[in-house]
Amino acid sequence: MPDIGTAKIIIMASDGFEQVELTTPKEQLEKAGATVHVATPDGGEITGWYFDRWGDKIPGDLKISDVNLGDYDAMVLPGGQINPDVLRTDETAVAKIRDFAATGKPLAAICHAPWLLIEADLVRGKRLTSYHSIRTDLKNAGADVVDEQVAIDGNLITSRNPDDLDAFCKAVIDAVETKAQAA
Amino acid sequence: MPDIGTAKIIIMASDGFEQVELTTPKEQLEKAGATVHVATPDGGEITGWYFDRWGDKIPGDLKISDVNLGDYDAMVLPGGQINPDVLRTDETAVAKIRDFAATGKPLAAICHAPWLLIEADLVRGKRLTSYHSIRTDLKNAGADVVDEQVAIDGNLITSRNPDDLDAFCKAVIDAVETKAQAA
Repeated sequence: MPDIGTAKIIIMASDGFEQVELTTPKEQLEKAGATVHVATPDGGEITGWYFDRWGDKIPGDLKISDVNLGDYDAMVLPGGQINPDVLRTDETAVAKIRDFAATGKPLAAICHAPWLLIEADLVRGKRLTSYHSIRTDLKNAGADVVDEQVAIDGNLITSRNPDDLDAFCKAVIDAVETKAQAA
Repeated sequence: MPDIGTAKIIIMASDGFEQVELTTPKEQLEKAGATVHVATPDGGEITGWYFDRWGDKIPGDLKISDVNLGDYDAMVLPGGQINPDVLRTDETAVAKIRDFAATGKPLAAICHAPWLLIEADLVRGKRLTSYHSIRTDLKNAGADVVDEQVAIDGNLITSRNPDDLDAFCKAVIDAVETKAQAA
């Protein structure tokens, strides 16, 4: 496994992603040396959500259906109220998340993105956090829900909201480094 | 119990309610003769969501915390991706929903509003429908989820999306009438 300086990281999102939950991980992971690709439903640009209104458009690098999971060392799922609610209805996206989890490589979800982990049935018996509004859904899906900046259980990394972004990004970087050292 | 011509109906919502899922029930129930009040978190106006953008502001009639459940013959919960995600974090709103359900009077939720029924732990063993994106959450909460215009189980009335609004409103009216005839 590559270290963070040579790692490739995939971010999957649709319209309505909480803007800073995509742009901040992208910036911090790139600053650490990683190559970051953004996969979107049609491979084109998607529109962010900036706290209480539509935000910026950002370009997609590839289609979610064209993501080759073997190319990537970690996956990051931004939140937003709209983006994961849309993406969880996309069977291809949910299958990519489920299959990536099975590789054991770091899979990180923040805010409302753990809905996608629920949809992929990845949370049963796992220690997770999320935005506070969706914690009942996580508990009903079998998760052990905690209220912490970052919860880590195996390869799953979760955080609560944009205030946790620095700790969330650091956890992704640390997880990639740990994998690299173990390899 | 009053018939629909003298019934009082409470709609509870916050910013981000799917606009037509509030305005259409309000219009159709008022046309049938009912008095309809809109309760909001602070009693003031709330901003709708019009399919893919912020919509109109509508006035509130009273605060959710000031809703006297005994005054009302039915409760209607509009959807939207944002509104129920916000309202489910409002303990007062969730308690009002739970307490209203216990009265046995018609409780109707459309689209994403069944998240509020999950939060109030009202769906276990119940036959419900919802917007397709949240059906995994309903199943995990113990519901028997169906894909029908209107699902009715006891006093719970649920529908899937704005296309179901006419059938949804008719089901609320019928349920109020049935209660009136039984009284």
